[in-house]
Amino acid sequence: SLDGDRLWSNILSTARIGAHGKTGMNRLALSASDAEVREWFASECRALGCTVEVDDIGNMFSVLPGSKPGLATIAVGSHLDTQPAGGRFDGILGVLAGVEILRALHVSGQMLRHPFAVVNWTNEEGSRFSPAMMGSGVFCGVHDIGSIHALSDKEGLTVGEALDKIGYRGEHIAGYLPMAAYLELHIEQGPVLEADGSKVGIVSGVQGLRWLDVRIRGTEAHAGAFPMTLREDALVSAAKVVLATEAIAHKYPPGVATVGSIHVAPNSRNVVPGEVRLEIDLRHTEESGLAAMEAELVADIARLVPQAELSVVWRKSPVLFNATLRETIQEEAEGLGLSALHMVSGAGHDAAHVAVKVPTAMIFIPSREGLSHNEREYSSPQQCADGANLLLRSVLRIDEI
Amino acid sequence: SLDGDRLWSNILSTARIGAHGKTGMNRLALSASDAEVREWFASECRALGCTVEVDDIGNMFSVLPGSKPGLATIAVGSHLDTQPAGGRFDGILGVLAGVEILRALHVSGQMLRHPFAVVNWTNEEGSRFSPAMMGSGVFCGVHDIGSIHALSDKEGLTVGEALDKIGYRGEHIAGYLPMAAYLELHIEQGPVLEADGSKVGIVSGVQGLRWLDVRIRGTEAHAGAFPMTLREDALVSAAKVVLATEAIAHKYPPGVATVGSIHVAPNSRNVVPGEVRLEIDLRHTEESGLAAMEAELVADIARLVPQAELSVVWRKSPVLFNATLRETIQEEAEGLGLSALHMVSGAGHDAAHVAVKVPTAMIFIPSREGLSHNEREYSSPQQCADGANLLLRSVLRIDEI
Ligand SMILES: NC(=O)NCCC(=O)O
Ligand SMILES: NC(=O)NCCC(=O)O
Repeated sequence: SLDGDRLWSNILSTARIGAHGKTGMNRLALSASDAEVREWFASECRALGCTVEVDDIGNMFSVLPGSKPGLATIAVGSHLDTQPAGGRFDGILGVLAGVEILRALHVSGQMLRHPFAVVNWTNEEGSRFSPAMMGSGVFCGVHDIGSIHALSDKEGLTVGEALDKIGYRGEHIAGYLPMAAYLELHIEQGPVLEADGSKVGIVSGVQGLRWLDVRIRGTEAHAGAFPMTLREDALVSAAKVVLATEAIAHKYPPGVATVGSIHVAPNSRNVVPGEVRLEIDLRHTEESGLAAMEAELVADIARLVPQAELSVVWRKSPVLFNATLRETIQEEAEGLGLSALHMVSGAGHDAAHVAVKVPTAMIFIPSREGLSHNEREYSSPQQCADGANLLLRSVLRIDEI
Repeated sequence: SLDGDRLWSNILSTARIGAHGKTGMNRLALSASDAEVREWFASECRALGCTVEVDDIGNMFSVLPGSKPGLATIAVGSHLDTQPAGGRFDGILGVLAGVEILRALHVSGQMLRHPFAVVNWTNEEGSRFSPAMMGSGVFCGVHDIGSIHALSDKEGLTVGEALDKIGYRGEHIAGYLPMAAYLELHIEQGPVLEADGSKVGIVSGVQGLRWLDVRIRGTEAHAGAFPMTLREDALVSAAKVVLATEAIAHKYPPGVATVGSIHVAPNSRNVVPGEVRLEIDLRHTEESGLAAMEAELVADIARLVPQAELSVVWRKSPVLFNATLRETIQEEAEGLGLSALHMVSGAGHDAAHVAVKVPTAMIFIPSREGLSHNEREYSSPQQCADGANLLLRSVLRIDEI
């Protein structure tokens, strides 16, 4: 078993890198604070016997050699980047648990048969550069490296430039490392486990998603002098889109639908809004439900706001994880006396990309009040240690196969 | 009559100071570009025989002495500040027409009996510092100078500091100048004159307004993992407020109601919005209509979004202009062969404050498509010249009284 206290103290101490508010994080992908936590991760892993390899999208692989030649790597991991006002556990737990597995192996002197890697995927959150889960997407061939390098943030800096700036455009071609299995430990980010009372979640898969952009043009006019009947108020139209988006989710349970972001121009009290841009996020566990939500919302928007310009910027189908790995995790949870719930992940994860080419599974631990992408995100030291120990035991079992 | 070509070329040439886009303006109150246009205005007026006086809120008075001792000043004016994405005529026309009256008097060698002043009021727009019509409000004793100096912009710079920074905290106490009459020429900023076909508007008064701030707190959560039934989505609540605001105007014609500005946190696509702030603008020609709109909207918001926090940041009752001055303007319009419509102003104006202590009236010219607070704001050279000539003729008539 691994050192839960050490895991907890690393979570707290690395949370200083990009801290935001009292218990929050603002460590955007490829920012200076991302660079700083990457250096910490690399030097920690090197001290535990790893070589640290970086690919051309900045994914980091801390690799321990295995005892039996010719075997593919068993990998665990997650991400060290955060939302602009996120928490201390989302992604971070999975990478830091991997570091503690390295430490447990180092301390015990035990060598695995397979090579073993702890992965830090680049830009899981998608807050600075869209889409989310970028590094794992390139690794798995879902995105082409050239077009991803050319994407830019709001300041116009491209992914390629941001990688160069922090020195993380690595020499390896993304996807270079053959993996025998990939496991990811993560906080649930929803209220299901807490409500159910189970200690851990065994994730059956990840729901699908659609990201839509909506642009609504109206006519800027004087808020006092321009009559109601002649107005083209882009914010009034946008409000209808926000409510239609919420309604579509209620119509297709267990689907969820969110307008997370809105930009209004000129955004001045006494000016009728002339232009609004909205960012919509739709999710559903079934591809059919997701397709129906998308089609109906597009039709609703066309009816309510005929002048709206819509574009679908990302479509991802639901993903199923590997049944054998899920069974192995179930058995190890029983061995550790951890009650487990089989559940679908509401959030997207790097594992959802990796699953396309590698046998993959995920372990969840509860999130207090189900909160995530929130500075109040919290899981207890015991919950973190439980998840990390289950991850370690699962890795040891898989290594025997 | 005055030089319409000169007026037009001054509108175009000073529009370079704080130009925004192709035909727009971004000359926020007390900014560097505001300072630059103030210097232009002062030197132009000095060259035409004026002394330029500045009060402690930065209002500028370019004063010509009169021939008959002991008379109060006849003033014309408006403002040289603009919206962040405004037009080239709003406010600017009224000040530049005043400069052309000075030039006409200068060229003809004619001296008025009364002292004559062209006024540039500080911060009419209210885009950088709220409330709007700030300088004229202090001049007329509606606002206390100390509390106005202490107000700050989004960067935390106070009005007092901004005045010092551009050297426009003047030596005169606001309100020092006794006025016999105040006339303001302005673009209509709405579509009424264009639709009616009249050449000019004679403004009977200015409608009243209410500025409300609404703050809605929800709970930030993961847009994929947090179930719909448990959400407190601040943007969904805000959308209801936007639609309720629009509905209230339709219920109380000819009232208008606008949510011009919205701020969402954290404003990230895959995060359920945790907090939204809205800025509402309500107007009505009747105080009773305005009060009903306010009361009913407050009740609607309390019912739709019980957790909303509301505050009224500004209340201004409708204002009636001086009947004698309006009649004088009407007669002069007839003399010039300009068809005139008597109308209420939809927009607020410095004249609405000045009217509290000085006999006041306003002249409108048409706005193309009724557009203002918009880069496409436009009135033709002929329309500008018509308005300015009517202003000149009215001043000459009032001077005889
Ligand atoms: N796990 C997580 O927060 N992923 C970010 C991508 C998403 O699901 O919105
Ligand atoms: N005339 C004008 O645009 N005034 C600004 C204040 C307002 O009416 O909103």
